[in-house]
Amino acid sequence: MLKDNFVTIRDVEAAAKHLAGIAHCTPVLTSRTVNQRTQTQAFFKCENFQRTGSFKFRGAYNALSQLSVEQKHSGVLTFSSGNHAQAIALSGQLLNIPTTIVMPDDAPAVKQTATRGYGAEVILYNKWETNREELAQNLSQQRGLTLIPPYDYPHVVAGQGTAAKELIEEVGELDLLLVCCGGGGLLSGSAISAKSLSPNCKIIGVEPERADDATRSFYSKTLQTVNNPDTIADGARTPSLGKITFPLVLEYVDDMVTVSEEAILRTMFFMWERLKIVVEPTGVLAAAALLEGVVKIKQGRVGVIISGGNVDLKQVGQLFQ
Amino acid sequence: MLKDNFVTIRDVEAAAKHLAGIAHCTPVLTSRTVNQRTQTQAFFKCENFQRTGSFKFRGAYNALSQLSVEQKHSGVLTFSSGNHAQAIALSGQLLNIPTTIVMPDDAPAVKQTATRGYGAEVILYNKWETNREELAQNLSQQRGLTLIPPYDYPHVVAGQGTAAKELIEEVGELDLLLVCCGGGGLLSGSAISAKSLSPNCKIIGVEPERADDATRSFYSKTLQTVNNPDTIADGARTPSLGKITFPLVLEYVDDMVTVSEEAILRTMFFMWERLKIVVEPTGVLAAAALLEGVVKIKQGRVGVIISGGNVDLKQVGQLFQ
Repeated sequence: MLKDNFVTIRDVEAAAKHLAGIAHCTPVLTSRTVNQRTQTQAFFKCENFQRTGSFKFRGAYNALSQLSVEQKHSGVLTFSSGNHAQAIALSGQLLNIPTTIVMPDDAPAVKQTATRGYGAEVILYNKWETNREELAQNLSQQRGLTLIPPYDYPHVVAGQGTAAKELIEEVGELDLLLVCCGGGGLLSGSAISAKSLSPNCKIIGVEPERADDATRSFYSKTLQTVNNPDTIADGARTPSLGKITFPLVLEYVDDMVTVSEEAILRTMFFMWERLKIVVEPTGVLAAAALLEGVVKIKQGRVGVIISGGNVDLKQVGQLFQ
Repeated sequence: MLKDNFVTIRDVEAAAKHLAGIAHCTPVLTSRTVNQRTQTQAFFKCENFQRTGSFKFRGAYNALSQLSVEQKHSGVLTFSSGNHAQAIALSGQLLNIPTTIVMPDDAPAVKQTATRGYGAEVILYNKWETNREELAQNLSQQRGLTLIPPYDYPHVVAGQGTAAKELIEEVGELDLLLVCCGGGGLLSGSAISAKSLSPNCKIIGVEPERADDATRSFYSKTLQTVNNPDTIADGARTPSLGKITFPLVLEYVDDMVTVSEEAILRTMFFMWERLKIVVEPTGVLAAAALLEGVVKIKQGRVGVIISGGNVDLKQVGQLFQ
């Protein structure tokens, strides 16, 4: 039950049941190199290995699986820069629910292709001319589709919380949990799980310096926004936290930090070269906070959520020059 | 005990004991996409996540840990195009044994740097002018170093066999095991383990078309060679199977197949994009045989050894264009 849009560990547990046998219980990687370099014991929860290549599948599938029969029959619509789009598209395919995705026309080709590959209808828009929330609201009403927003939706938040739940259940209690932050769905869901399953765990959200709206919101306790920020971490280009995620972040998150574009790229290169995993820029935000020393910790047990691995491989050569 | 240079499952078991707590028990990944596409149940044993980024650490550490006190004190020497070099270098560092590596001067920069980073002395040579085995033999005698060749050495073969042993112990018996083949150390070690632990498992070795010496040797039952083959799979550029590995391959391997350069690149792209793992060209040989339909199998349980992930990321953009 979701009371007053406030998500609890019970909702995360319910989501875990919906996802059992459907979502991957993703592997947790460790690295002696990372542990030596940071003087911590780090556990990387690899949601880049999740279905559709990111944690977004958890929230999307949980949300779609809890719709009414009528809603399922009519179909759903969402707006997304990519990973939530694929997640909704695959969830719709698995649950036999028609899906429509509103996507910026500069979204990576690999994400557009994958979304269409799961059978979704993709509607492109120009992000400089169009407000995506308004476009999605209008389409939703015109076509009778249920809108499943990418983060500001209780069942989405609850679904995202299952990744941290699995992590803590597998490796035990943590001293610190680092989570990237765009709209705050993964961050608030993770924080709900961590505070319940590892009460002494400190939770820190990580944003790009160039898209630091959530950090400013956290410190000012007033919702701050940023428009089309110029960061390589495309999953963190969301304008602000949501009506649901902002209070959750204020309630459960201990601190927010930011990392530079250079730190994101260095960490991405490190994760690919040394850990041998393909991680997208947004996916390394939490790891960057640890590896670049933005978050100070010694000797502790640190959970790091690797949020996704959807990157256009043809562009990687340019990134890594 | 290694009798007459013939390696048995007992030697693999002994190697597993030496490696326990030192080598990673690497994760096994599965992919619904791969299973749907191939109509099999595929298990990828990810030695790209092994220490030093490839399976080579297993054989190297096993070999070095079984040297006499005098041999350890004097140090070891090897010749390698890269992965065995890093593996010997790290093993030497861990066991406090001085290491000297003879390496072609065109070996990937990432491999040269990593080898020196583990404290090894690196001696470069021009592969068009110098026979590496002769150079290594001469240096070994001049300096009193024990030569640990990259594959034709019983304790190396036994160590490499531990990867397939772990795979079968984790996922159960297999119908087919696909293993890449350069000098045959990993292939023969894997075959020894598979025939013992999963007696009905068929073992197939996979080579690049352009470096098909082992395939020709297997069919002709006479050792065939190839010199400096022009394949992107640098780990399979070895001139031939060895005195120890050739008889083992004839005894335990069921078939040999080859894959084209295009198939290697397509499979590499697929593994990076869909499985989100960084795999080097040689590392995808076995996967290519499955994904490109070179090996015909339906409905079976297929083990695929991903041998390594050491690739120069700055060159990846060119590979994937």
